[in-house]
Amino acid sequence: MGDRIVGIIGTGSIGGSIGKRLREGDTFDVFGYDTNPAAIAAALATGAIDAGVTREELYARADVVVIASHLDATVTEIQRVRLEGPVRADLILDVASVKLPVTQAAAGIPNFVATHPMAGSERSGASAARPDAFEGRAWAYVPSRDEQLDERARLFIESLGGVPVAVEAAEHDRIVALTSHVPQLVGSCYAHRLRERGETADALCGPVARELLRVSQMNFSMWRAILRSNAPNIEPELRLLAEALLDAADALRDGDVGALYGLFPPERAVG
Amino acid sequence: MGDRIVGIIGTGSIGGSIGKRLREGDTFDVFGYDTNPAAIAAALATGAIDAGVTREELYARADVVVIASHLDATVTEIQRVRLEGPVRADLILDVASVKLPVTQAAAGIPNFVATHPMAGSERSGASAARPDAFEGRAWAYVPSRDEQLDERARLFIESLGGVPVAVEAAEHDRIVALTSHVPQLVGSCYAHRLRERGETADALCGPVARELLRVSQMNFSMWRAILRSNAPNIEPELRLLAEALLDAADALRDGDVGALYGLFPPERAVG
Repeated sequence: MGDRIVGIIGTGSIGGSIGKRLREGDTFDVFGYDTNPAAIAAALATGAIDAGVTREELYARADVVVIASHLDATVTEIQRVRLEGPVRADLILDVASVKLPVTQAAAGIPNFVATHPMAGSERSGASAARPDAFEGRAWAYVPSRDEQLDERARLFIESLGGVPVAVEAAEHDRIVALTSHVPQLVGSCYAHRLRERGETADALCGPVARELLRVSQMNFSMWRAILRSNAPNIEPELRLLAEALLDAADALRDGDVGALYGLFPPERAVG
Repeated sequence: MGDRIVGIIGTGSIGGSIGKRLREGDTFDVFGYDTNPAAIAAALATGAIDAGVTREELYARADVVVIASHLDATVTEIQRVRLEGPVRADLILDVASVKLPVTQAAAGIPNFVATHPMAGSERSGASAARPDAFEGRAWAYVPSRDEQLDERARLFIESLGGVPVAVEAAEHDRIVALTSHVPQLVGSCYAHRLRERGETADALCGPVARELLRVSQMNFSMWRAILRSNAPNIEPELRLLAEALLDAADALRDGDVGALYGLFPPERAVG
């Protein structure tokens, strides 16, 4: 039994991974709340939380609150917290994939820090949760301008194995457009073409193709809000990548493979 | 000591992985030959071969010959074997990434089977070789129309942990354009943009981005011949992917995220 309580709102794969990691230590008891009772049952069954509680009990008792829902639900929850007024916790954080809508919704909420762990899974639900999901991975947070609050957030992130990386919300969203959202759409478009191409193609996939296929299994229900809210950043990066691929196609058509040389790293010696 | 000898021509990461795997069993002694003496030294030092030999000794003594060079060197070696006439081995196979130039060069060589293991590494040389590199991975081979020869090739592939997949040369090259060569160029173009974008972007990479960055470390010296010889298959696949990305960009620009729904798999229940 820990002497402090973490309340997790949304006990899916990220919330469940946070719960499983916390329950390996003895600092925290882990309370969970989810609008979907099946998600709470799965979190209890897989050891991601100590107890399922009501939303009211969670906010009344938790020392740390983690909002671990999809983007839309996260923004809705944060708006509700703002309307309902101060809560007991001295640290409230979210983990959604786009940060500008979150920081806008959270403006004025004391003890709130917007964060984003760089750990995803193509599988959803607490059964996909892993206590080492964040180990050594970057975990972005948007500095709150309250240095003591930021320090609490960093310590909490580190206690989960994550590596805190400070980044402003708008800059975060521009970066993840390139590092996460474009790769997702590449995976989706690629998998679509591979399905068109058929059976044997699937068998003869290299490691990159397998990773693109893996990510293409993500649910649209999670990605809809991400793609919509970060569209202004994703669209230009998609076009840049498409143009680069078309340039490469032109080079291949023209028999000018040497034009692709600059895309590859400098040559290294065999050894 | 095995009572049969495998001769590996080209003791880099694939040849070295084959050698290391064979040396775990006791069926074969592994002889190695490489035009680069440093590659032979590395193969001996890392336990990939039992002995370094001359090319002549290798062909005079080996029961199985594996040509494990880059595509250009493989085609050159095969042309030389054809000119020099029959060899002792009852199985000669190559492992190059494009099969039509190989089967054309090998026409009429007895006991030759063109193959391609779906296992690559961004690292080169015997130090990157792993005995389990092929474990459970597809290993394509082009049926020779000599069923006993094909059976020997399948057994050899299986002895290395690979899963034999029969495919005609032209069809193989169309498939790997999509499953291997397009992903390589996507990785290269993507890494190029990420380097442009700078430091923090690198820290905030998700798993797909990391895989694209990994593959982007491959040497151009290996890829030049692959891209040139398979350009007619790669070019149209690159254009298809680029067009799909541009369509997605248009949907994002138009606020029509729903248009991307069809790219994602059907929704699943939380559990």
